[in-house]
Amino acid sequence: MKFYDCRTAPSPRRVRVFLAEKGIELETVQVDLGSGEQFSAAFRKINPDCVVPVLELDSGRCISEVSAICSYLEDLHPEPPLFGKSAEEHAVVLMWNARVEQQGLWAMADAFRNSSKALANNALPGPDSYVQIPALAERGRTRVVRFMQRLDSQLADNRYVAGDFYSVADISAMVTIDFAAWIKIPVPDDAPNLARWYAAVSKRPSASA
Amino acid sequence: MKFYDCRTAPSPRRVRVFLAEKGIELETVQVDLGSGEQFSAAFRKINPDCVVPVLELDSGRCISEVSAICSYLEDLHPEPPLFGKSAEEHAVVLMWNARVEQQGLWAMADAFRNSSKALANNALPGPDSYVQIPALAERGRTRVVRFMQRLDSQLADNRYVAGDFYSVADISAMVTIDFAAWIKIPVPDDAPNLARWYAAVSKRPSASA
Repeated sequence: MKFYDCRTAPSPRRVRVFLAEKGIELETVQVDLGSGEQFSAAFRKINPDCVVPVLELDSGRCISEVSAICSYLEDLHPEPPLFGKSAEEHAVVLMWNARVEQQGLWAMADAFRNSSKALANNALPGPDSYVQIPALAERGRTRVVRFMQRLDSQLADNRYVAGDFYSVADISAMVTIDFAAWIKIPVPDDAPNLARWYAAVSKRPSASA
Repeated sequence: MKFYDCRTAPSPRRVRVFLAEKGIELETVQVDLGSGEQFSAAFRKINPDCVVPVLELDSGRCISEVSAICSYLEDLHPEPPLFGKSAEEHAVVLMWNARVEQQGLWAMADAFRNSSKALANNALPGPDSYVQIPALAERGRTRVVRFMQRLDSQLADNRYVAGDFYSVADISAMVTIDFAAWIKIPVPDDAPNLARWYAAVSKRPSASA
């Protein structure tokens, strides 16, 4: 297998942390998003959506989308489990991972991509050009703060995002919190449960991936 | 198990079609989104995110998010498989399902929710009020058309969205196409593969769910 990564980007970091938790080492190719390598003819053959991460399987098939890549790696390397153990735990992990993506990560992407000067005509990832919508950047910031408060409530009763066990939902949430720091949205002062959880997951060796 | 549904909404329809394909019948509760029942104190206990669908498990745990609900039902009722059979097929289905959601369904939601008069202060689902962003409605329409063209290319070489087998990605895509008709975005004239596929999946008995 071959892993198409970009060291500086949040989405492929979700896979890097996942790989570190699993103890999997893969041949890795850095794609230089800064210079637009994702739009090259060579990379479009790997992923016509022009985004990383991508996992190239031994069959030659290329898999994009973090949730698909992590699920495939879990199928191949079940230990340690990062999607829960039972069917019910699996469902709770997927639910929380989807909530983190939709309420947290996509909101952060709205906030960042619609305000960064470097992305004036690339407000969305992918091959198509979209101009920035300033109101969407503003709404994104509001939503990220609300997401952090929502997560704080969940973590009042749970050690980790999906319950008493570490999972892929924690990885997605940690990456979202670190991404929020790019545009100076910190963990709120009135979110002690989120702060406790964030300190704990950030201390894991995988967090440096 | 108990299924919290709304007959008129696209997201729970994804679960209804999935259940029909599996031949599963569940006790079903209709939640009246039109009158705001999702914001009631009673429903907030079932899902604090105030959205349907929700699957209440026999343990009492409530699972929201379509991808989590369908995956749980697949774990309990593997036949017929709707997430592929092998690990590789599973990965391809999850990849395409995520693409359909992000490039198709969320774009459609942007287009609809930011233009519907009834949703002036509810441009996003959930308990928080967000005003509409007209530029986001416009961008959503553009993206939905591009999504249909993208899907047409995929369907030029594949009988179904994720390959030569019917899957949950087809359900998500069909629901997106039908949702697009709400705001008069038809299958484009220059998308013959998409038209062929759409006619085929719409003829399945599950499509009426």
